[in-house]
Amino acid sequence: MTAAPRFDKTADPRFDQIIDRRGTNCVKWDRMEAVYGVPAEDGLAMWVADMDFRPPACVTDALRAMLDHGIFGYSGDDTAYRDAIRWWGKERHGEEVSREAIFSTHGLVNGTGICVDTWTEPGDGVVLFTPVYHAFARVIKAAGRRVIECDLAYDGTRYSCDFDAWDAQMEGSGAKLMILCSPHNPNGRVWTAEELAGFAAFAKRHDLILVSDEIHRDIVFPGNRFLPMSSIEGVRDRLVSMTSTNKTFNIPGSHIGNVVIEDESLRAAFAARMAGLGISPNSFGLEMVRAAYSPEGAAWVDDLVAYIDGNRRIFDEGIAAIPGVTSVPLEATYLSWVDFSGTGMTREEFTARVEHDARIATNHGTSFGSGGDNFLRFNLGMARSRIVEAVERLQKAFGDLQ
Amino acid sequence: MTAAPRFDKTADPRFDQIIDRRGTNCVKWDRMEAVYGVPAEDGLAMWVADMDFRPPACVTDALRAMLDHGIFGYSGDDTAYRDAIRWWGKERHGEEVSREAIFSTHGLVNGTGICVDTWTEPGDGVVLFTPVYHAFARVIKAAGRRVIECDLAYDGTRYSCDFDAWDAQMEGSGAKLMILCSPHNPNGRVWTAEELAGFAAFAKRHDLILVSDEIHRDIVFPGNRFLPMSSIEGVRDRLVSMTSTNKTFNIPGSHIGNVVIEDESLRAAFAARMAGLGISPNSFGLEMVRAAYSPEGAAWVDDLVAYIDGNRRIFDEGIAAIPGVTSVPLEATYLSWVDFSGTGMTREEFTARVEHDARIATNHGTSFGSGGDNFLRFNLGMARSRIVEAVERLQKAFGDLQ
Repeated sequence: MTAAPRFDKTADPRFDQIIDRRGTNCVKWDRMEAVYGVPAEDGLAMWVADMDFRPPACVTDALRAMLDHGIFGYSGDDTAYRDAIRWWGKERHGEEVSREAIFSTHGLVNGTGICVDTWTEPGDGVVLFTPVYHAFARVIKAAGRRVIECDLAYDGTRYSCDFDAWDAQMEGSGAKLMILCSPHNPNGRVWTAEELAGFAAFAKRHDLILVSDEIHRDIVFPGNRFLPMSSIEGVRDRLVSMTSTNKTFNIPGSHIGNVVIEDESLRAAFAARMAGLGISPNSFGLEMVRAAYSPEGAAWVDDLVAYIDGNRRIFDEGIAAIPGVTSVPLEATYLSWVDFSGTGMTREEFTARVEHDARIATNHGTSFGSGGDNFLRFNLGMARSRIVEAVERLQKAFGDLQ
Repeated sequence: MTAAPRFDKTADPRFDQIIDRRGTNCVKWDRMEAVYGVPAEDGLAMWVADMDFRPPACVTDALRAMLDHGIFGYSGDDTAYRDAIRWWGKERHGEEVSREAIFSTHGLVNGTGICVDTWTEPGDGVVLFTPVYHAFARVIKAAGRRVIECDLAYDGTRYSCDFDAWDAQMEGSGAKLMILCSPHNPNGRVWTAEELAGFAAFAKRHDLILVSDEIHRDIVFPGNRFLPMSSIEGVRDRLVSMTSTNKTFNIPGSHIGNVVIEDESLRAAFAARMAGLGISPNSFGLEMVRAAYSPEGAAWVDDLVAYIDGNRRIFDEGIAAIPGVTSVPLEATYLSWVDFSGTGMTREEFTARVEHDARIATNHGTSFGSGGDNFLRFNLGMARSRIVEAVERLQKAFGDLQ
C-alpha cells in the first residue's frame, strides 16, 4: 500500500476552517446516516452538491443589512439584480446578456421544470447526455415526458461525444428538447468550442430546444476555458441558458436560478408559463445574487477555484494510488467522478467499502442514469484536511488491492 | 368639515415606530412615485399588501442564527416546518392538518398557479367571487384559462353571497375550479359557517375543485370568528386549503406558502405537478415559518391584531366624517375597501384627490375585477400616527363635501 500523500492540510483559512454543519437542517450532513448508514459522529459527507464553505463576506454583509433593516416585504425593482447578472456574464465569460432576457426561477431544477413544461407535451422525449445530473431525469419523468438517454463515449479516463450514435437514436424518438450540462456534472468535462458547435448542430438537425445548464461554469481549473453556449453561432433561436450563484458561491438555500433567453419568441413562451405559474423570486435570493456578482465576489471565486484545484490534486493522487480505482480528470466542478470498475468488485462491494469501511457518503453512480453503475461521485467542496482524511480512509478501505 | 378625530397616535412601540423603508428595494414605498405619481418625500404608501412592521423577534432571531452559522446549503428534513404549521392550525383555528398533506409553494400566487395548472386545461373556466384579490385573475388569464366573475352582492355597506345568481352563471360555463378568498380580500368579510357551507355546496353542485385561500385567517377582529373551510362537512374530497405566514407575520419576502390537501387523490395530482415543475422551498422561508408558528409568534399576532383594530377604528371614524365616502366594515385583514360612489365623482376625480391632493398611494378598485370601479383599497398596516395623518389628508382633500 502506498502511503497517503503528504500534502499540506491548510491553504486558505476561509476554506480550511471546519464548520460543524450538523444540527443546522443541512441535508448533506444531517441526513447522511439515515440515507447511507454513514455515522454522523465521524462520517464524511461527500454527496449532496453544496460545499462546506461560507460565501464571500459581500453576500453575508448584504443579508446582515437586510436583517438590520428588519422588514421583509415585497421586493420591487430588480434592475440591480439583472445588472449584476449581466456584469458577471460580461466580466467573467465575455457574454452579453440583455436585461429583459433574464428570468428568475426557484433554482435551476425549477428552471428545468418550466422549460420542460413550456416546450414539450406529455409523452414527448427529452434528450440527456448520460451519465448526468440526476434531477433532470426526475423532473422529466414526473412531468410525464420520456427521458432519451444519449450515452457519452468513455474510454476509461475521459468522456466525449458520439454524434453519429445519437443521430441514429433520434429517428422516430419524439424528442423535442435537449438538456446539456456544461460544464458537465458528473464527468467534469469543459466542452470545447468544437464540441459545443457539435451539440448546437445536433439540436438544429433534430429541431430541439437546447437548454444549456451552465451552473458549474464558474468553477473551471487552469488549462481549461469555459465557453457559454451563447457564444456558438446559429443557436440563438433555440437556446435557453441557465446560470446561477448557487454552486459558485455555495448559496443553494437562496433558491434562485437565472434563466436567460435572448430569442423573443422563446422568451414570450417562457414568460407566459412563468406568469401562469405565478413564479417570482424571494427577497433574500435576489439580494444575495446582486451582492455575489461583484468584484469582491469575483476575487473570492478565484481563491475558491485555486483551493478546489488543490483539493482535487490531492484527491486524484490519492485515488491513483489505489489499484483499479480511477478518478476521471476534473476540468471543472468540485464533483469527482470515480470509476471502480477496475477493482472487479460488484457495485455492492465497492459501495460498502466506501460507506461502511471508509465511512464516506457519496452519490451513487446509478442515480445519474445510463453508464453510471460502476461509479461514485465525491464532493470535494470541503476543508483540505478532510480531503486528506478521505483519501487515507479510502486507501485503507481498499488496502488489500496490491 | 369635522375636525380630525383626536386619537392617541401611539399604542405599542413595536408598531408605532416609523421605519423608513425607502431605498430598501421595497415595492410599496420605492415604486409609489413611479406607479402613482405620489411623491416619495411625503407620500403615504397604502397600496401593496405588506405592513411597515418588523416581524416578531422569534423570526428575526431565527434568521440571525442562520447568518451566524453562515453556510446556506441545501435544507434537509422539513418535519419541524410541517409540525409548526400543524401546531398553528390546531392552536389557533382548531384545525387538524396531516403532516403529509402540506406542500410548500413559493407563496400563494405560485400555489394558485399550480392549482390552476393541476386541475384545469387551457380554455376551462375558473370561478372568482368579485371584487377579489387581483393576482388570481392575472394567473388564470396568463395560464390561458377563463375567469368567471361571480359578483358578490353589495348593499352599500356589506358584501354577501348570491348563490341563485351564481348557479345560473354556471350553466355551460366550463368551470372546473373556484377560488374563495376567506377571509375576503378586499371586502374584509369573515364568512360565516352558513356561508362557507353555501360555498361548499356550490362547489359540489357544479363539481368544482374548491381552493380556499385563507392567507388572511389570522388577522380577524373581535366579534368575528374565522372558520377554516376544512371544518365544513362533505368538502374534503374537493378541497385545497392555502395558508401562509406572509401576511400574518409580514414576511412575504420569504416567499413561502402552505398548500394543504388532505384528500389522497387530489394530493397525488398536486404532488406530481410540484415534482414536474421542480418546486422546493428556500431555506430562509422554511426557517422563518418554523420560527413564526410558535407561542411567541402567537402572542405577537394577538398584539398586532389589537393594533390594527385600533388603526381601523380611527380610519373608519375619519372616513365616516367625509360625506359620500364609506369604508366597508372590516371583519378581518388590514386592507380597507373604501367606496367613493356616494361622492358622485368620477373615478378619475376621486382617485386624483387621493393621489394628488392627499398624496396617498392605494390599490385601484378596478384591478379587483367586476364591482370595484368606485373603490380604492387602503392598507392600514402602518404606524398609527400615519393612519391619523392619512385621515387628516383625506378629510382635507374632500373638504368641500359638506
